[in-house]
Amino acid sequence: MPRFLRIDMKKGTAEFQDVPEKYLALGGRALTSQMVSDEVPATCNPLGERNKLIIAPGLLSGTNAPSSGRLSVGGKSPLTGGIKEANAGGICAQKLANLDIKAMIVEGKPAEKGAWMVKVSPEGAEVLKADDLVGKGTYEVTAILRERYGSKVGVICIGPAGEYMLMGAGVATNDAEGNSSRYAGRGGLGAVMGSKGLKAIVIDSPNTFDVPVQDKERFSAAAKKFAKILLEHPVTGSGLPNFGTNVLMNIISEAGTLPVKNFGNNGRFDKANEVSGERLAEVAKARGGKATHVCHPGCVMRCSNVYPMPDGKVCSPIEYETAWCFGPNLGISDLDVVAKLNYICNDAGLDTIEMGVALGVLMEAGVIPFGDADAAVAALEEVAKGTPAGRILGNGAVFVGKAYGITRVAAVKGQSIPAYDPRSCKGNGVTYATSPMGGDHTAGYAVTANILKVGGFVDPTKAEGQVELSRNLQIATAAVDATGLCLFVAFAVLDNPEGLPTIVEMLNAQYGLSLEVDDVVTLGQNILKTERAFNAAAGLSSVDDRLPEFFYTDKLAPHNTVFDIKDEELDTVFNF
Amino acid sequence: MPRFLRIDMKKGTAEFQDVPEKYLALGGRALTSQMVSDEVPATCNPLGERNKLIIAPGLLSGTNAPSSGRLSVGGKSPLTGGIKEANAGGICAQKLANLDIKAMIVEGKPAEKGAWMVKVSPEGAEVLKADDLVGKGTYEVTAILRERYGSKVGVICIGPAGEYMLMGAGVATNDAEGNSSRYAGRGGLGAVMGSKGLKAIVIDSPNTFDVPVQDKERFSAAAKKFAKILLEHPVTGSGLPNFGTNVLMNIISEAGTLPVKNFGNNGRFDKANEVSGERLAEVAKARGGKATHVCHPGCVMRCSNVYPMPDGKVCSPIEYETAWCFGPNLGISDLDVVAKLNYICNDAGLDTIEMGVALGVLMEAGVIPFGDADAAVAALEEVAKGTPAGRILGNGAVFVGKAYGITRVAAVKGQSIPAYDPRSCKGNGVTYATSPMGGDHTAGYAVTANILKVGGFVDPTKAEGQVELSRNLQIATAAVDATGLCLFVAFAVLDNPEGLPTIVEMLNAQYGLSLEVDDVVTLGQNILKTERAFNAAAGLSSVDDRLPEFFYTDKLAPHNTVFDIKDEELDTVFNF
Repeated sequence: MPRFLRIDMKKGTAEFQDVPEKYLALGGRALTSQMVSDEVPATCNPLGERNKLIIAPGLLSGTNAPSSGRLSVGGKSPLTGGIKEANAGGICAQKLANLDIKAMIVEGKPAEKGAWMVKVSPEGAEVLKADDLVGKGTYEVTAILRERYGSKVGVICIGPAGEYMLMGAGVATNDAEGNSSRYAGRGGLGAVMGSKGLKAIVIDSPNTFDVPVQDKERFSAAAKKFAKILLEHPVTGSGLPNFGTNVLMNIISEAGTLPVKNFGNNGRFDKANEVSGERLAEVAKARGGKATHVCHPGCVMRCSNVYPMPDGKVCSPIEYETAWCFGPNLGISDLDVVAKLNYICNDAGLDTIEMGVALGVLMEAGVIPFGDADAAVAALEEVAKGTPAGRILGNGAVFVGKAYGITRVAAVKGQSIPAYDPRSCKGNGVTYATSPMGGDHTAGYAVTANILKVGGFVDPTKAEGQVELSRNLQIATAAVDATGLCLFVAFAVLDNPEGLPTIVEMLNAQYGLSLEVDDVVTLGQNILKTERAFNAAAGLSSVDDRLPEFFYTDKLAPHNTVFDIKDEELDTVFNF
Repeated sequence: MPRFLRIDMKKGTAEFQDVPEKYLALGGRALTSQMVSDEVPATCNPLGERNKLIIAPGLLSGTNAPSSGRLSVGGKSPLTGGIKEANAGGICAQKLANLDIKAMIVEGKPAEKGAWMVKVSPEGAEVLKADDLVGKGTYEVTAILRERYGSKVGVICIGPAGEYMLMGAGVATNDAEGNSSRYAGRGGLGAVMGSKGLKAIVIDSPNTFDVPVQDKERFSAAAKKFAKILLEHPVTGSGLPNFGTNVLMNIISEAGTLPVKNFGNNGRFDKANEVSGERLAEVAKARGGKATHVCHPGCVMRCSNVYPMPDGKVCSPIEYETAWCFGPNLGISDLDVVAKLNYICNDAGLDTIEMGVALGVLMEAGVIPFGDADAAVAALEEVAKGTPAGRILGNGAVFVGKAYGITRVAAVKGQSIPAYDPRSCKGNGVTYATSPMGGDHTAGYAVTANILKVGGFVDPTKAEGQVELSRNLQIATAAVDATGLCLFVAFAVLDNPEGLPTIVEMLNAQYGLSLEVDDVVTLGQNILKTERAFNAAAGLSSVDDRLPEFFYTDKLAPHNTVFDIKDEELDTVFNF
């Protein structure tokens, strides 16, 4: 029977509970957002006693459905002031699901300062003192806990940034090799975990794919079919498995929508190739790393990579958005620098996108020069030290902007906009502006139809069609985020009419349901409605569904376009 | 004829303009708020090109109406994200009014970095380069400009904090002796001035009381009567002229509503007397300073003081709220330390209240210990240096809280709550929560009826009657802030039925109007409606009309009360 594991950090207790009926058909983002909406007062202080951290595997997690190992983490975001779900790969979703844990709810705050951890296994769950882990980076924490509890455990943890409750702090999970570099990175959920004094969660489960499935045969057939659909699509079957997400670097630069030097006015970076996925694959292989790699067992897309750094450490993975924010966005074209900045973030427990954009603002302010790799590394290293400069940076791009009086800050609802300039990838601009998550490319990834011509084509430089595109993608994404499937399955699903029905078939076979495709759309819509209602109650309004001013006024070369989708149109995104 | 002086910082021009009919009957806060509402897009970035700084004397400023020298400064606040009017004493309102300048509008932003000043005199107005003033404190800037343009000029300027565009930066004006320590302090308007590259405004006017008055005899009679009303009231005629505003220290501590050590849970400070107005008068006099003093010619309340510091410098004035925030709020009981912190703020161009509350949060975080005067001075000195630590502090209490993960931050709409704990001065709590200005004691000073028994008595520890009290005071205050009269006249006006009619009589005599007392109430209501509408358009809502969580949960000794006015009641404050 599926269970909730409720951790009360005030009392120091861990209790298993029955799952109320209303939550049984929810998972991942659907579950975290519904529970946050039900249990967290929308106006509470995100770092206060009344916020909660909800951790939930997806509906399909723990089965052998391909690429279904995403772990959703939810709460009220200290960065956006609204609801947040961030999801990560790694092995923890599968392990939690295989312990029949539908969600972990972390609530309350300890009366005294200190650090604790939660250990959960088939034998039970307990809250333990973890003062020995205080101040340690995620790599070391994970290594210590794997040493202590066995190399197969899943570890969810925070770094010093989360302990300091910085708004750029994420929640880390590990892959099978023990790298603590899979991140529910966005929105400062690491700070929420830190505010509760919770340094780490160890999940000790012997199983990976053994979640109960009602109709095994039917499920197995559907899962196989789904794997085939993924493998046959050029993006999920070839682009990602060969080069990882950073296959996008040259494509996005070529398309003229690559933000360069803090979202300057040129959408191409002349040295894009030097930090591209192609180059990364070459270097990684030459150094004995891996061009591609799975972040959790059973993934067929294998988009992760293993990048050996000159100092002997390994960074795994380097995503496109990370390569962008530490590369072109800073005027840096050295993959080793990108890897180093990425590694520092992973270890300190920081969202790479937030830090890359924040460093760009620091460069805009002239505190450090654009292109200065050593200065960028030195600035980022301050975060884990907890110095004033580190606390400014670690709180993200908007905070840096306020510290230095900079208005050119690419963020929505306080959260940094990533690697696709909204002036010439306007579908993404609509998503950035309107997603209940704040500036977030994954929430409605219009790069598909805008740039990659997946699921049709909508001219990225024109206003027409972008609202509808973003709306449909936001709905679909919310639903996918409920399943535990990696969002990247969307590339195949959007192009293959069999895709969505096959996901529905897996869900029906697993849970003995009789869902239809329309039900998945309804699920996505409901998630968004729940999230929007929370945000409205938290004080967010249509005023917050806007891009920063400069995107409306400063033209981006080479297309020489501005973001010109009208406020009234943006306000129709959630008309459903 | 009254004129607007419009300064375009992009073009570097200063132009006189006719005043449109609709603005003729407005002044002070009524004028700044209406113009901000008309000319500033509510959703603009407060430090961006579209915000404006509006500087306006009150309706009675420049006449010999007693205590009518307040200068209103308005704009969109970087601190609150809403509309802001902050007003200051000093000689500038009278000088502007005597040049027939109804308002100065500072708009646009220079294309390049740099510093400019505006010089205005009977001969005209011009924008001048002011690179020699960059980085200088307000005392030095004022001294240089008085040296250059004559010792009688009025100087409006910002310090380094404003140049850095920090959210705690205020706009300074000078008194007749040249002290640049009269502050339109609140809401970060100094940062708005800084964002426009405007370091200083010099106002060279030969006249003080010579504004045209339509019926001089009638005006003179009313002004005399008003002076008598002020002089006959115990607060305005005795308490303030003998001890200044800091006469409140012992009273508020005795009343058990003095916030101590970052709004801890005891409303009394055992060493209150050591930083009281009585003690201040004693020390100031003993050192050759002044217990009381006027901040502008024609004030009968003389609530300012001149405090000689041990290092030979002079701090003028030390207000009650400043003595509180640098004294009891930090666990400090040494007037010389208070004076030093006050002086540093004046010179750097910082709002003392915001800095005192921010230092309290820094102490709450354990960055420096409560009561450590040297550490407080050192921390505050960082602001003018522009170091990361200084930028954190200079951005105010909420910013410090976010830098250090502290939730106990006494602020509303981003602005710090001052010297009266809302748990046992609940009328002020209603004002803090609901004023369109954010946490602001002056916006509806319920200390009158709650503590001082002026204008009736409403038990400060009870919820009953506070909403009505705050509503009426907010309306009256908005109207008073339009006249240029110092808000302190309210003590007498609330207790004397002749008070308000006499103000109306002065206005009628000056402008040839036939206003009645009800019209003043309507004026106050209209100002608040305009401000509330701007804030709503800027994205603020009832969610922002709330106190921080801890005021609702942590009891304050000795009355052992929490703030318990219901949200639904708070939402009725503006039902008019």
